[in-house]
Amino acid sequence: MSSMLKGIAASNGIAIAKAYLLVEPDLSVERKEVGDTEAEVNRFREALATSTSELETIREKANVDLGADKAAIFDAHLLVLSDPELIAPIEDKIKNESLNAEASLKDTADMFVSMFESMDNEYMRERAADIRDVTKRVLSHLLGVQVSNPSMISEEVIIIAEDLTPSDTAQLNREFVKGFTTDIGGRTSHSAIMARSMEIPAVVGTKEVTSEIKNGDLVIVDGLNGEVHINPTQEVVNHYKNEYEQYEKQKAEWAKLVNEKTVSADGTHVELAANIGTPKDLEGVINNGGEAVGLYRTEFLYMGRNELPSEEEQFEAYKAVLEGMGDKPVVVRTLDVGGDKELPYLDLPKEMNPFLGYRAIRLCLDEQSIFRTQLRALLRASSYGNLKIMFPMISNLNEFREAKSILEEEKSKLADTGTKIADSIEVGIMVEIPSTAVMADVFAKEVDFFSIGTNDLIQYTMAADRMNERVSYLYQPYNPAILRLVKMVIDAAHKEGKWAGMCGEMAGDEIAIPILLGLGLDEFSMSATSILKARSQIRNLTKADMENLAQEVLQLDTNDSVIEAVKKVINE
Amino acid sequence: MSSMLKGIAASNGIAIAKAYLLVEPDLSVERKEVGDTEAEVNRFREALATSTSELETIREKANVDLGADKAAIFDAHLLVLSDPELIAPIEDKIKNESLNAEASLKDTADMFVSMFESMDNEYMRERAADIRDVTKRVLSHLLGVQVSNPSMISEEVIIIAEDLTPSDTAQLNREFVKGFTTDIGGRTSHSAIMARSMEIPAVVGTKEVTSEIKNGDLVIVDGLNGEVHINPTQEVVNHYKNEYEQYEKQKAEWAKLVNEKTVSADGTHVELAANIGTPKDLEGVINNGGEAVGLYRTEFLYMGRNELPSEEEQFEAYKAVLEGMGDKPVVVRTLDVGGDKELPYLDLPKEMNPFLGYRAIRLCLDEQSIFRTQLRALLRASSYGNLKIMFPMISNLNEFREAKSILEEEKSKLADTGTKIADSIEVGIMVEIPSTAVMADVFAKEVDFFSIGTNDLIQYTMAADRMNERVSYLYQPYNPAILRLVKMVIDAAHKEGKWAGMCGEMAGDEIAIPILLGLGLDEFSMSATSILKARSQIRNLTKADMENLAQEVLQLDTNDSVIEAVKKVINE
Repeated sequence: MSSMLKGIAASNGIAIAKAYLLVEPDLSVERKEVGDTEAEVNRFREALATSTSELETIREKANVDLGADKAAIFDAHLLVLSDPELIAPIEDKIKNESLNAEASLKDTADMFVSMFESMDNEYMRERAADIRDVTKRVLSHLLGVQVSNPSMISEEVIIIAEDLTPSDTAQLNREFVKGFTTDIGGRTSHSAIMARSMEIPAVVGTKEVTSEIKNGDLVIVDGLNGEVHINPTQEVVNHYKNEYEQYEKQKAEWAKLVNEKTVSADGTHVELAANIGTPKDLEGVINNGGEAVGLYRTEFLYMGRNELPSEEEQFEAYKAVLEGMGDKPVVVRTLDVGGDKELPYLDLPKEMNPFLGYRAIRLCLDEQSIFRTQLRALLRASSYGNLKIMFPMISNLNEFREAKSILEEEKSKLADTGTKIADSIEVGIMVEIPSTAVMADVFAKEVDFFSIGTNDLIQYTMAADRMNERVSYLYQPYNPAILRLVKMVIDAAHKEGKWAGMCGEMAGDEIAIPILLGLGLDEFSMSATSILKARSQIRNLTKADMENLAQEVLQLDTNDSVIEAVKKVINE
Repeated sequence: MSSMLKGIAASNGIAIAKAYLLVEPDLSVERKEVGDTEAEVNRFREALATSTSELETIREKANVDLGADKAAIFDAHLLVLSDPELIAPIEDKIKNESLNAEASLKDTADMFVSMFESMDNEYMRERAADIRDVTKRVLSHLLGVQVSNPSMISEEVIIIAEDLTPSDTAQLNREFVKGFTTDIGGRTSHSAIMARSMEIPAVVGTKEVTSEIKNGDLVIVDGLNGEVHINPTQEVVNHYKNEYEQYEKQKAEWAKLVNEKTVSADGTHVELAANIGTPKDLEGVINNGGEAVGLYRTEFLYMGRNELPSEEEQFEAYKAVLEGMGDKPVVVRTLDVGGDKELPYLDLPKEMNPFLGYRAIRLCLDEQSIFRTQLRALLRASSYGNLKIMFPMISNLNEFREAKSILEEEKSKLADTGTKIADSIEVGIMVEIPSTAVMADVFAKEVDFFSIGTNDLIQYTMAADRMNERVSYLYQPYNPAILRLVKMVIDAAHKEGKWAGMCGEMAGDEIAIPILLGLGLDEFSMSATSILKARSQIRNLTKADMENLAQEVLQLDTNDSVIEAVKKVINE
């Protein structure tokens, strides 16, 4: 039967394909006494054999698609599967206690996992993780439930998931994944940001796609209107094929602007830049006429792996992006992890409020070797393009001064060894903490630029977790409080002859753009796929009118009255 | 051997007494086969009998000290101990599986707990909690480890704990608890606030008191300097006896100001008010010359119990406070739970960032029956004194408007029934979210007053969890960003002829007071024990000089430079 779910339109476009469920299977184990223990041992050995051959296939595929580095993880898993120290006690347990294979496996594995985890030794903790992964796989075969292997997808699909972690999304193959939809998340969740950067349509926060959709169902993801259609009628399919064509036509219209400047109707130029996560995203930036990279999120270099990236590896990535952009600016944000972005190998403490915790520059100033490695890689890459360095989560001047002085130290050390470094590298900060917006006039004397990170700035200013659906109505980008802080930052920058950009989602939002233009924002950095639409919008706006609009909305009382005021102007 | 630990001075004063450790005992259970199962069953029955007689004593004492209401909890525990449906399966397990009593008890209890917890039934979930509590007690006797019973303390002690929850502190007997010290927490943690309200010295955040101190050790808590001395030499004891006398002497000096007005050296009057948690705290307010109650935290009425307080019960509490203060103002804050303050019976969802989550007014506007009950109790009590109502965690105007209109609805419903309600009740808001400080000019047109809640305002403005020790250095009350927001709020209030107070810890802080006086703050609300000291300080300050100081520090760059500038002025 056909049905439709509403969600949040997280990434533009329309996709039609078969559903692929990426869900954690139910691996709960019942304890049972077995009569024929011999048969039970054999059942266990069969599950081992199936898991082994499955892992061998995955390792081969990983080797080809992702390289030997990532494939090595599966070697470790295969070793666990053949380890007599783990296997023998399980079989003994089945035989001696007449306990079913599932429970025998779980008891034994749990014991090893908790033993290894309690050791103060990185290597042993990794082994614990390996055992846990492998146990899941063997259990799934014993229980006859399916475990997802997203890296094995080889036909066009739409991914259906509760949520997608950054490492999930990193594993997805752009060639086959045509769209995705999730139960939870909002426009600024990381899965949504990834979808836009991968240019695939997505609808998030549907609450129930995983319970409503089965593997193989035909699914339409309407990333323009936030709708998910399940097993649609032919009529609906036809409608969407038509919509898809319309959208492609509109995109073709926008595409004509790819080499145009971004100039308002009355002649003010602003810079439209792109947010990227990896060098691979450059293609999208170029294709969409990005005038700069306004935010290179370097944390993806650190994710989905077992150890820190080396200086050399980072150097290569930064160099690739700088060379790829030629003489256009590339703003690289230094490592922003912690909060909702965890790195298992850093073993960060669990926090009660990770969004208000030990993350980004706080971590980098504390764990300086990580920070210095990244800065050296950046400095070495600087001579290959137009690099600007930006520190995240700056909350007070001491942090900026300390970060900058570490940068200067590394620069002079590198210079001493004769390394070529660009003559001038602008050093700026993210403004995403209210204290920094309020103090922007003082900061402006010392930084080279600001980039306003609205995703975090909004959540801290409103004291509302943007990932928490119970308070998501408080994530109010147009609340005059936010607009006033944005104005403070822009005015402070201009007073000192510096520039101010924005790299939050708000920069590409059609309600926000008229206000931001009116406030005098210099650079708008957004998902590459939003650039051409934004350019088209700005070319039709008059800066002088937008200045009046901005003055008006700063004095309004609520988020809703601002939206209303803007709509009145842009629909005139 | 003598030793000393450094911590954070959380509540003034000096205490010398024996240590009482309030720690979660290690109740981990080993699985063992037992030979003599009969003997093992008897061992189990003995542990049951000891637990029963212990619980009977506690129930008697609770009945006398705390009333039949609280004693009823222990009746429920006693019922569990004699329930054959729980006891029989445990004894069967010992006999049939030759399993030791500890593991048999734990397996059986865990099964019942998870069965009851999974039911969608309040009563059954409470039974699960009872079983868990009772199991702990019986296990402790089987294992021969001691469980703390803080309500049983009957001699002078200093409490040593990892941390104290609000319900822990509620159980403490003020007569015998002379001071406390904890491993974690800061000046604004709830245990610290409670200590000040109970007027007992406390040192928190020592990191290791629970591992360094044994039950019965002689301990000195120096709440003036943040030191904890363990088994001190006679010399140190003498020194502290002397310090104690000095401090009592200084307190006697301050006490002379109890009936004096709070007037600056050049004649400006400000109001010094007290923060309270229960009607019992009024005694301290009166004894310390409080001119008002600036913050009545009503959440304590809702805590440490199994169901919501009735309207009648709330009415009695509010009436008691209003009558106790006579015609002096009493600012009552409506329910502020969620965040770090949980109410088990509300069954709130677990959140990733509770400080940025579903709490306070957000919860009250959603669960309106809770809110309306409280408002009715307040309105009915209003005719017994000088009531002002304050809403917590307001982040935007819609919330204030909605809360106020619910209040108006309840008022007119009560008026229709002929209930006597005070003619004018001021309705104001806490300013503890950055957006509200930034929008204070717009709010000032609609609210009757502001009370700046600095504890939360600082943590949101700096994006740093004040309970998280890894980022506690970012809890910067004197950061010019905070002072600028405070100024915005005070100026906005005055422009509309309204008043602005402050009820965070900052209001009683000797570095902050000169600045706040200079910024024109009208009301300072603090722990009752800080009032006389603050009055003494303000009487020596000249408002005109403080205005200059305030102007100066608003332009400074960091928290440290503000502290330096203030110290220069007050030490002149």
